[in-house]
Amino acid sequence: MSLAELCGTDDPRVIHDAQSRAWLCALSEPGDGVLGALVQSFGSARALEIALGADEIPAEHLAEAGLPSRTLAEGRRRWHPRRQDADHVVDDAARVGAQLLTPAHPHWPTRVDDLGPHAPLCLWVRGDGAALTTPAAVAVVGARAATGYGEHVAGEIAGALATDGVAVVSGGAYGIDGAAHRAALGAGGTTIAFLAGGVDRAYPAGHHDLLRRIVASGGAVVSEVPCGSAPTKWRFLARNRLIAGASDATVVVEAGWRSGSLNTASHAATLGRPLGAVPGPVTSASSAGCHRLLREHDAVCVTGVDDVRELAGWGSASPPGAAARSPEAVRVADALSVRAARSVEDIARRAGLAPDDVRAALGLLALEGAATASDDGWRAGAHG
Amino acid sequence: MSLAELCGTDDPRVIHDAQSRAWLCALSEPGDGVLGALVQSFGSARALEIALGADEIPAEHLAEAGLPSRTLAEGRRRWHPRRQDADHVVDDAARVGAQLLTPAHPHWPTRVDDLGPHAPLCLWVRGDGAALTTPAAVAVVGARAATGYGEHVAGEIAGALATDGVAVVSGGAYGIDGAAHRAALGAGGTTIAFLAGGVDRAYPAGHHDLLRRIVASGGAVVSEVPCGSAPTKWRFLARNRLIAGASDATVVVEAGWRSGSLNTASHAATLGRPLGAVPGPVTSASSAGCHRLLREHDAVCVTGVDDVRELAGWGSASPPGAAARSPEAVRVADALSVRAARSVEDIARRAGLAPDDVRAALGLLALEGAATASDDGWRAGAHG
Repeated sequence: MSLAELCGTDDPRVIHDAQSRAWLCALSEPGDGVLGALVQSFGSARALEIALGADEIPAEHLAEAGLPSRTLAEGRRRWHPRRQDADHVVDDAARVGAQLLTPAHPHWPTRVDDLGPHAPLCLWVRGDGAALTTPAAVAVVGARAATGYGEHVAGEIAGALATDGVAVVSGGAYGIDGAAHRAALGAGGTTIAFLAGGVDRAYPAGHHDLLRRIVASGGAVVSEVPCGSAPTKWRFLARNRLIAGASDATVVVEAGWRSGSLNTASHAATLGRPLGAVPGPVTSASSAGCHRLLREHDAVCVTGVDDVRELAGWGSASPPGAAARSPEAVRVADALSVRAARSVEDIARRAGLAPDDVRAALGLLALEGAATASDDGWRAGAHG
Repeated sequence: MSLAELCGTDDPRVIHDAQSRAWLCALSEPGDGVLGALVQSFGSARALEIALGADEIPAEHLAEAGLPSRTLAEGRRRWHPRRQDADHVVDDAARVGAQLLTPAHPHWPTRVDDLGPHAPLCLWVRGDGAALTTPAAVAVVGARAATGYGEHVAGEIAGALATDGVAVVSGGAYGIDGAAHRAALGAGGTTIAFLAGGVDRAYPAGHHDLLRRIVASGGAVVSEVPCGSAPTKWRFLARNRLIAGASDATVVVEAGWRSGSLNTASHAATLGRPLGAVPGPVTSASSAGCHRLLREHDAVCVTGVDDVRELAGWGSASPPGAAARSPEAVRVADALSVRAARSVEDIARRAGLAPDDVRAALGLLALEGAATASDDGWRAGAHG
């Protein structure tokens, strides 16, 4: 498979940019802000030459890009050890049928551009890249060590979102991530799994079938690191910013006190994206991280999909309305009996209200069917 | 029992004030702001004469008290129907051995004065009025329809507070209220039950023994309505302001979507007192009101007594601390193997870092015991 096929375009500028980005991606670890700033300032092709030390640029041009010479020198010392790794990234992707998305591609998820210099250089995608441009997307994330409660709630929320046409975004882990994807698939919706390692390897291996189903269903399995990359701790942390960045809102369903999903939550907050957390029993360690988000990070308490819609700004879950009674009506209702008819004066004394106010309240209660007048006085309830 | 005994004082001014307040209390329903404003402006004795229409005061004096003539006239129409009820309030209280507390009494809970004209005129108390002046007090409230989970959490929190010498304040209902009182009693602490009806009657009847135990333990059973008063809906709502008003902070443990304890929470918020809510499973209707407080009313998420202490401002629950690793250290640790020794150059390539940064990170990881140097390179972990 050629790079043109990998990128789904014949446009030579797009292909050239994609090639440079694929190489830059191989040189660096995810989220390298110096490389990101070089690409933003000089374009991908020249950034690659600069990164490799083939293009010496004047210090004042670097300063314009916000990069001191020393920072560039440090960057080069990071990137140089990987010079040989760049050669085979495109072939590796072609071998597994992965797409290569760049910002020029129509399926590029522009939400991630808010990450600025920490935006991904490119994305390797299996499945349908179009899933990444679903108009509405919500991250449903949480702990691997989920409980039945957490998996149930994740499934309810993800299933309802998917039914609404909202793309569900998550990682590929056991627990909440898996429950969210399965529910979205079950609802016939769009679901997207961001992996910490390359898209050529199912991680965890036990989710091989789930990831395959996502790919087959028109969803997407996505990574910013090249095929063959191991899912290291660092790449998990970096991957979390993509989950938050690719979503309109992030909901943490269950998380222990130190769960990695709190890191995703933190990225959502940093991006100014709405952040929700599902509460659970305070006796459950699997909800401690969610309660921490509610206490310490101003996360919004999410109890179901209506709350998620409101969180994302797609309409408010209006509380069930009922006109509240006035204090006078409450007191007059208190003073009525179902059995004994009472005079306005008797009701006034019992309610501690003036007779005129009692008459007014009785009128309102009668309209509600909560008071009835008869020849011998007023009773509680509607006409027998 | 004489009024002097009821008030626990020989001071004629205090006794006279108490007599007037007891009568005013009998004339009105709880929280009557007009009567409260009259007492604040003219004192209890003259307020009583004004209320009964025996003292015509110039409109400009009323205006100074913030009361238009029309408002006073309306008040009189409320109070007059009860002129006869005032005669026996003191005798009724004496018969059941209730104390009469007024603002002049050393056991008056001055926290309730923040209610302004809606502060109680007096309080009828069984048990030890001194409980009301415990330096620290927290309201632990919630639904009658509590679950085992809610009662467990209420008990844990109330028991720990009571052990700390904090007075537990609640209503007298089944469910959360009862669990809070029982735990405080079990811990040998101070607990206070505010009733909606008179203190002469146990409501609900099934809590007769619990209320008796509170009285016997040095706690207090308290009401602002005279003995013989029924616990009407209105008096429950009014009573809720006393629970919030008598406490430094209010914690709602479990509450349905329309639970009365949300009303207590609303009073705490209005008073500017700290308000906490205990989350629970989103699948539990008994936690829906707590989640509503977290979502809509800026309640603080409370997961245990440490959070309550922090809520009330008595010291913070510091999160378990652990120095986080730098991004470089995370990446270098990712690149280490337990079995294979690796050179700095190899680690640099794997981590995508400059060799100098790798050396610095290895030094830190070695101090943590997470990396070990040997003749053939670096391994993960401490010396074998």
